[in-house]
Amino acid sequence: MSDTAQTLPPAALAQLFTEARTHMHWQDRPVTAAQLREIYDLAKWGPTSMNGFPMRLKFVVSPAAKDTLIPLLSEGNQAKTRAAPATIIVASDPSFHEQLPALFPGAPGAKDLFAGNDALRESTAFRNSSLQAAYLIMAVRAFGLDAGPMSGFDAAKVDAAFFADSGYRTNMLINIGYGVAEKLYPRGPRPAFDEVAEIL
Amino acid sequence: MSDTAQTLPPAALAQLFTEARTHMHWQDRPVTAAQLREIYDLAKWGPTSMNGFPMRLKFVVSPAAKDTLIPLLSEGNQAKTRAAPATIIVASDPSFHEQLPALFPGAPGAKDLFAGNDALRESTAFRNSSLQAAYLIMAVRAFGLDAGPMSGFDAAKVDAAFFADSGYRTNMLINIGYGVAEKLYPRGPRPAFDEVAEIL
Repeated sequence: MSDTAQTLPPAALAQLFTEARTHMHWQDRPVTAAQLREIYDLAKWGPTSMNGFPMRLKFVVSPAAKDTLIPLLSEGNQAKTRAAPATIIVASDPSFHEQLPALFPGAPGAKDLFAGNDALRESTAFRNSSLQAAYLIMAVRAFGLDAGPMSGFDAAKVDAAFFADSGYRTNMLINIGYGVAEKLYPRGPRPAFDEVAEIL
Repeated sequence: MSDTAQTLPPAALAQLFTEARTHMHWQDRPVTAAQLREIYDLAKWGPTSMNGFPMRLKFVVSPAAKDTLIPLLSEGNQAKTRAAPATIIVASDPSFHEQLPALFPGAPGAKDLFAGNDALRESTAFRNSSLQAAYLIMAVRAFGLDAGPMSGFDAAKVDAAFFADSGYRTNMLINIGYGVAEKLYPRGPRPAFDEVAEIL
């Protein structure tokens, strides 16, 4: 960071973190394809291990794509996903290492590190696609939209419906749009620093 | 988000995403305990599944704690970690579900969902502590500091050295401080939208 970098303005911290909420109810207000591309083009800059970038995305917007997705969700996630203008399927590519020569050209041996080690590839793809899901959530909020991340779905069936050709594995889903603030329930508490952290 | 939420100012998007870099070289400038607590108190608001909050942290700052950590890192991560004013060990609690009655009081059965399902607990703890690591990276940057996330270390040995009593599992490490911009190498490319994403 440059020596002049400052703490972001309070309104930005509120929009990203302190006042942002996971939404379950959505306004009848669309999210455009241009917005979806803009969200991707911001979130893509978040760091991943060796710039490996395992995240692969489907943006579910059309009624037909929703009809495919929604029956594969746990019951509690169905109505809100129907109401959301878009749902991001965040998957990971277990063969992400094939792209390392292009994405991480400074370390020519990086691909071989993963080629013979399935466990390392799987944990790296899962960890880093999860980091990238969080960058997406932050990017959604940075553009003034709301996010509703979900992990209640039948992953094998979502994989089969959306990634049968590629072998990508669904990690989580994120509803996006403009939430209905009046329908939020009270916010859950967070642990205090000393309950979960320590300075050594 | 309120109906008046806007895209963050360009300088904020640059500081968080478009101009932010993973740093390997660190200025000789400390990070205070107050800053570490401030970073936690911002990052803690990022969403986790059922507010389960599996992340557990050690902030390695003292020379003694560094002497314990550094030999457990891959060789390429040692010098930069010695130079960084602080290193966050991001771990996850595989028994995070024990806290669900306090953290997610609206769903009294949530704890039981996980109690008998080790695979679900492990994947949930790994996914969500990874999301929380990304929130930490964004919080570090939001305060004008730099981050250097790492996954090259002997996880079993870090667990044994720092979490033997608790059974927490180390997920990743994040060096933090003020980076030396002049020593950055050229930035790695990112895939274009159409290479990894699709709107359905």
